Amino acid sequence: MKRQVYLAMKPLEEARQLFLSRIDLDKRAGVDSLDVSNTLGRITAEPVFANWSAPNFFSAAMDGIAVRAEQTYGTTERHPKILKAEEDFVWINTGQPLPAGFDSVIMVEKLHALDEDRLEIRSASHPWQNVRKVGEDIIATQLLLPQNHPIRPYDLGALISGGIFSVKVWKKPEVAIIPTGSELILHTDLDETKPPRNNQIIEYNSQVLAALVQEAEAIPKVYELVPDREEQIRAALSKAVESDAGVVIINAGSSSGSKDYTVHVIKEMGEVLVHGVAMMPGKPTILGIVNGKPVVGNPGYPVSAVLSFDQFVKPLLYLLQGQHPPERRKIRVWPTRDIPSKLGIEEFLRVNIGRVGSKHVATPLERAAGSITTLTRAEGIIRIPALSEGITRNEEVEAELLVRERDMANTVVIIGSHDITIDILADEIRRTGQDIRISSGNVGSLGGLIALKKGSCHMAGSHLLDAETAQYNLSYIERYLTGMPVSVFNLVLRDQGLIVAKGNPKGIAELEDLAEKDLTFVNRQAGSGTRVLLDYRLNRLGINPESIKGYDHDEFTHMAVAIYVLSGAADCGLGIFAAARALDLDFIPIEREQYDLIIPNAMLDQAGVQAVLETIRSENFRQRVRALGGYDPAKSGNLWKQL
Amino acid sequence: MKRQVYLAMKPLEEARQLFLSRIDLDKRAGVDSLDVSNTLGRITAEPVFANWSAPNFFSAAMDGIAVRAEQTYGTTERHPKILKAEEDFVWINTGQPLPAGFDSVIMVEKLHALDEDRLEIRSASHPWQNVRKVGEDIIATQLLLPQNHPIRPYDLGALISGGIFSVKVWKKPEVAIIPTGSELILHTDLDETKPPRNNQIIEYNSQVLAALVQEAEAIPKVYELVPDREEQIRAALSKAVESDAGVVIINAGSSSGSKDYTVHVIKEMGEVLVHGVAMMPGKPTILGIVNGKPVVGNPGYPVSAVLSFDQFVKPLLYLLQGQHPPERRKIRVWPTRDIPSKLGIEEFLRVNIGRVGSKHVATPLERAAGSITTLTRAEGIIRIPALSEGITRNEEVEAELLVRERDMANTVVIIGSHDITIDILADEIRRTGQDIRISSGNVGSLGGLIALKKGSCHMAGSHLLDAETAQYNLSYIERYLTGMPVSVFNLVLRDQGLIVAKGNPKGIAELEDLAEKDLTFVNRQAGSGTRVLLDYRLNRLGINPESIKGYDHDEFTHMAVAIYVLSGAADCGLGIFAAARALDLDFIPIEREQYDLIIPNAMLDQAGVQAVLETIRSENFRQRVRALGGYDPAKSGNLWKQL
Repeated sequence: MKRQVYLAMKPLEEARQLFLSRIDLDKRAGVDSLDVSNTLGRITAEPVFANWSAPNFFSAAMDGIAVRAEQTYGTTERHPKILKAEEDFVWINTGQPLPAGFDSVIMVEKLHALDEDRLEIRSASHPWQNVRKVGEDIIATQLLLPQNHPIRPYDLGALISGGIFSVKVWKKPEVAIIPTGSELILHTDLDETKPPRNNQIIEYNSQVLAALVQEAEAIPKVYELVPDREEQIRAALSKAVESDAGVVIINAGSSSGSKDYTVHVIKEMGEVLVHGVAMMPGKPTILGIVNGKPVVGNPGYPVSAVLSFDQFVKPLLYLLQGQHPPERRKIRVWPTRDIPSKLGIEEFLRVNIGRVGSKHVATPLERAAGSITTLTRAEGIIRIPALSEGITRNEEVEAELLVRERDMANTVVIIGSHDITIDILADEIRRTGQDIRISSGNVGSLGGLIALKKGSCHMAGSHLLDAETAQYNLSYIERYLTGMPVSVFNLVLRDQGLIVAKGNPKGIAELEDLAEKDLTFVNRQAGSGTRVLLDYRLNRLGINPESIKGYDHDEFTHMAVAIYVLSGAADCGLGIFAAARALDLDFIPIEREQYDLIIPNAMLDQAGVQAVLETIRSENFRQRVRALGGYDPAKSGNLWKQL
Repeated sequence: MKRQVYLAMKPLEEARQLFLSRIDLDKRAGVDSLDVSNTLGRITAEPVFANWSAPNFFSAAMDGIAVRAEQTYGTTERHPKILKAEEDFVWINTGQPLPAGFDSVIMVEKLHALDEDRLEIRSASHPWQNVRKVGEDIIATQLLLPQNHPIRPYDLGALISGGIFSVKVWKKPEVAIIPTGSELILHTDLDETKPPRNNQIIEYNSQVLAALVQEAEAIPKVYELVPDREEQIRAALSKAVESDAGVVIINAGSSSGSKDYTVHVIKEMGEVLVHGVAMMPGKPTILGIVNGKPVVGNPGYPVSAVLSFDQFVKPLLYLLQGQHPPERRKIRVWPTRDIPSKLGIEEFLRVNIGRVGSKHVATPLERAAGSITTLTRAEGIIRIPALSEGITRNEEVEAELLVRERDMANTVVIIGSHDITIDILADEIRRTGQDIRISSGNVGSLGGLIALKKGSCHMAGSHLLDAETAQYNLSYIERYLTGMPVSVFNLVLRDQGLIVAKGNPKGIAELEDLAEKDLTFVNRQAGSGTRVLLDYRLNRLGINPESIKGYDHDEFTHMAVAIYVLSGAADCGLGIFAAARALDLDFIPIEREQYDLIIPNAMLDQAGVQAVLETIRSENFRQRVRALGGYDPAKSGNLWKQL
């Protein structure tokens, strides 16, 4: 078995400098000569000097008459002057050339017509008054655009006006993207209605990388899938470095697994500069040179692939075009919890960000590099330096924004128990064209109340049943939100029940079966509304939790419970109908529970909060929720308690 | 003669609201169904929910062996356990599916091989350890993207991964652009080597507008040129509103000149909502509705055309795509001088911006709406509100940036007398790939020293001759920069001389001719180095300035002087060779003068200042300067005095 060890892992900045310092700019793609009208966004390859002046003739800057200034000298209100058509003046419109011999324009508003042929003026004019002079805008030989300048819309105007109709711009660099992996299958070989087989992984990194290449104003060339075989990877790389491509990305095969031939092939054909970067995600990045061209072994996990591209390929592509990558906007955020991080590795932590009151709060998303949705759902990235052991909720830190700042100001942050109807809510608000986004963090019902208390969210989503009062949420609010006046609105009523395998092979019918039959259960974490509900019902039924196999195994979401059941590792778990439906499992309803939104009264007037309430009261929202099954939106948006 | 009056001019914000409120979103272009790989940057037309979960099978998250967790319970360092291949474990790589019956992965680093078939482990494993579970990233039915969402590179990954291969996105709106004007000629009908005739204006507004439409993610359709004839404008507009275009721009014909039929035609065929907006440039904007479609009469002056587009068409195009226009970055700047502005009109003032020390300084460019280069040269725009009478140099104001903020930090601001070799300098720095920009303001030599004293620039460009010492600059520096230690570096030596008409028809040979022959002279303003030189030479020759016709007529630049000569309004003026050459005029050398860069010692260490000095000392710079003619770069970059 062949196994590899990373070459000495390099700090991010050092790796990038080493890589970029080896790029030979003289080998870049060369120059395109384009008609000026096709050059928007392209980069000038040389300075552009005006061919001629603009304007290139003297013309009227106003509608009126062209005159000889000398002839008007001495004219005043008390000594008006009469001018004769053709002889002393000619009519002229803005932009028309000044007839030979004339040097001044009197605007129409200052004229007093005597008859068809004669006008009276009551003030003198001076030379070049209301005249656009030659070269007023552009002088022949003047520098119109420097080199390495990205051409903007109005630059086209200056170029055409200065007599430049053909422009030399840098060719866009071509990037060969080689997807490797024997387990991969293209989405174009699949059918949307049927997921791939168990040993197949849908290839999408090359699509993401191609899009990133396009965003960097370069041209992606995606190669055919290459299986994990050394000779085939070698053949693909040979073809790429012989092609027009100036940059090659091999994805993936950059970790130290037994089938990862990329580093071996690059070393054999050229030089490996870096193997392993002290960043996370993105560690297994390879940077090399083959045939004088930069070759990047890009990691296979999708988030690693994106972040590695961002740090190495993006600056390279801009460098090849004489540019620097656009900088991401940065803001200061307060983390909603402590986040430890590994010393010696720079971590790129994806976070949800929303503005609550006067501060921006950041809630970390999962750190898994395999989860592409941690990028799609993130509003920002917190970079935790290599020399830090993490960040704490007591210090403001910097976050790079992945969305626009205005999106953050318009974000309603809902923290607590997750429910799919919050997705529907988010979409309904968007559908109606309102510029309001919903950011939801799933920390369980109790976690939501605590976040509310801390000022980390606009509202909490909660379905906590009080065993004594048999009421939802109120007693918990009194206990955890002491001194904070809040209003409690219903979001939905929903069915909790036992999620069981398709066809219910164990014949589960009710909660009592958990203790009586030989079943494996999967539980939810303490503090979740579902766990509270379970304990309440077990208590009422007189069932000892210890008699339930799997009671001590916690999962954190409805979906995690459903997945356990799907895998066969558990026979059942308590959760909502939507989770069972998503994975095509069966469902035995146990309780119709109440899921509420708890909103501080101080926030009720905010536009985003108002939009949430209006939306959940709308007929559209109710219809969509009803269509999901397992939900009752009859009370959605009803205020049922103000505390 | 038909003349029109503006309808009551409307404030900008009111005009925009009125216009946008009349847009019927139900009439927008509709939906494209695209393969996911073609959707980068497009806007979702409906929410996208996952078709299936990802991962959709249980797989190894590490390289190692798959085991049954239960079999490992009780294993410790002191009680290791031996596992048999195939029976107790199977080898597995990251990403491979977990074989049926196995529920845990032990990473390769924790294994101790005994022989081919047997491994020893020294710790227990728990279920799902190092296993990627079904739905860990995406759960079937989950909201992947909301509607009205611009698709980013990594969104493609989430879509493909969630089984979405075809995506419904909004069609891009089409914009019909109708260029009108009998005097217009297309650049494609011209030859770069020959400027257009005197009654022709090169059409470029429609190219600029088309590029602005593209930047707003819409599709421009540029119509053929339409002459200024009412029936032809009517025909073009009819065709446009019947076409697929959702928006129509007529450029221009929106002012009140005699041939401006646009407003008349719109009113006749539909409705004029706004005619005249209280903004400058951009006032003669028409906003109307014809056939239910928005029609904009866009002003003819290029800067007006761009700013009017920016305020009305851009937000419209984003609205049609469920978006808001990207916001321009704003910074606080100090104006370098007072700028009065007309009450009641919102002015968009183009400014050069550079960072000098800790502050950003803004120097206004010309305000002419006809000068497209006031946009191409600007780093920002200061909006002077309608209710303000202007801004003063004593108050910081806000500027919208047209360039990136880093560009400003890397800008070297050179204020003073203009010289074309500063353009060469700027380009040479860029050519060598340095991220440094030169921003130059032309206020004359003395103006440059005053700007330096005020801290408004990094260096001043000056060629002030002292009549007593016959030395350049030093006595002026002592007088105007008292207490500021500076270094004086030569930029170039250059020829000043008499600029005369091509072929020198008046046979001018020397300065004495000014007094002796019947010549009209054009002068430079007091405080300019050229004026100082003239007065010095006249004094030495004993010529009384009053004997020179035109001595009291000031122009502010070498080029303005040359243009006067070109127009025939003056027979000659004093200026540099480059100005004569640009306009193909003749030149009679009078003096080889010294043009210096004066730099505060405190700024000498700055990277930008160093780059300037290195560049003007380089052989490349000298060669390019020599090639211009009329320059001697022998001393370029020499420090000749430190004060």
